[in-house]
Amino acid sequence: MITTAETDTALRGRVRDLYDAYYDTLDDVRLSDWPGFFLPDCLYRVIPRENFERGYTLSTMQAESRGMLQDRVTGLTTTQMYAPRYYRRFPGPLRISAGPEGIRTRHNLLIVQTLIDRQSEIVLSAVCHDRIVDEDGRLYFAERIVVIDSEMIPNSLIYPA
Amino acid sequence: MITTAETDTALRGRVRDLYDAYYDTLDDVRLSDWPGFFLPDCLYRVIPRENFERGYTLSTMQAESRGMLQDRVTGLTTTQMYAPRYYRRFPGPLRISAGPEGIRTRHNLLIVQTLIDRQSEIVLSAVCHDRIVDEDGRLYFAERIVVIDSEMIPNSLIYPA
Amino acid sequence: MITTAETDTALRGRVRDLYDAYYDTLDDVRLSDWPGFFLPDCLYRVIPRENFERGYTLSTMQAESRGMLQDRVTGLTTTQMYAPRYYRRFPGPLRISAGPEGIRTRHNLLIVQTLIDRQSEIVLSAVCHDRIVDEDGRLYFAERIVVIDSEMIPNSLIYPA
Repeated sequence: MITTAETDTALRGRVRDLYDAYYDTLDDVRLSDWPGFFLPDCLYRVIPRENFERGYTLSTMQAESRGMLQDRVTGLTTTQMYAPRYYRRFPGPLRISAGPEGIRTRHNLLIVQTLIDRQSEIVLSAVCHDRIVDEDGRLYFAERIVVIDSEMIPNSLIYPA
Repeated sequence: MITTAETDTALRGRVRDLYDAYYDTLDDVRLSDWPGFFLPDCLYRVIPRENFERGYTLSTMQAESRGMLQDRVTGLTTTQMYAPRYYRRFPGPLRISAGPEGIRTRHNLLIVQTLIDRQSEIVLSAVCHDRIVDEDGRLYFAERIVVIDSEMIPNSLIYPA
Repeated sequence: MITTAETDTALRGRVRDLYDAYYDTLDDVRLSDWPGFFLPDCLYRVIPRENFERGYTLSTMQAESRGMLQDRVTGLTTTQMYAPRYYRRFPGPLRISAGPEGIRTRHNLLIVQTLIDRQSEIVLSAVCHDRIVDEDGRLYFAERIVVIDSEMIPNSLIYPA
């Protein structure tokens, strides 16, 4: 529970820390740590902007529990090999608002891909609408909705956003 | 008026909120809300870096009142159709300084364009030098100078920065 | 010395100001001011991610003193001419932690290049691991390690990161 006694400033600091840790984990490709940022019951969705704005829920990728995210990681780390590449995430300014269902946030997200011997390029331009809750003093994602500007995730984006 | 009693931290928070709302409005293509961020008497200018650094005022685009910005929006929303595309704005860290003429800010701005079935690409790399004033408890742009690194705005950048 | 009496908030503000000033200096191509951000004895290193993660120190560029950085600037400003271009730096969120050896920071860095008559493009995607110390009330870089996602700095990146 977020108590009303907790100052706004302290809460905002904790939310920022959550995102810093989340994006560093993904940038560093510590994939096995990724599901731990989510509640056991959660919603992770990557959805094209056009669908999102029309109120559709048809998504490019969806997981409804931490277990499904763990399965996704297993799939990523045990299957095929890809050309060596790095992803780096550049989140924009974070808007934070607190409500009865937890903390709502909105921020833009740019993901840049670098193949070792090629020029860096943008693989994702998106806006994230997340809901965060406090469980026993730690913050977790209850919902993470990544609304992508393109129709589909590029094939080259293998790893989570 | 910004009173000296207002703490620095509170003022910085309000300025950040202004930019968050401004860029979200543009990212969401709520164009009719755009002129309302400016004073009735204002200066909105998009200018190539070379001209700006030489002290010239020859601009790629200029408006000198909220009414002119409204005309611009009318032009955008009533004329020709373009290939469907989305813009997303990624502002860099915000420098804020307060003076007798209001609040001066500086920040970099990256605008990314996504055509639905194509790879995202950068359409604008710029630095913004803005002046913000407080009117009846709300912040407005008195001046917004967008200094672009290229010679001209790409044809493909249809919407405001 | 960073005294324990200095509040976290104030220190974080000073570190942010350092980075704002550092990146503005480079964006504005005030190269002669660049070495002054470093201690006389310092480490400036640009290193490919693969080498960095394996614990190698083989670097693309390295300087071990402010004097070497000054030499680098002299080299840049007195030698050949390049096609006119601008660089703009987009640092990501800044993680700050204080320890006995000074302040450690981590943040992502995107550098965008614009040739005057061409589309802007990414020339660098990197993560920076820096160490900052306080000397007589001013903050300086003791170490700046720029870990780049590509194998080498593009030839086109002439100026410092």
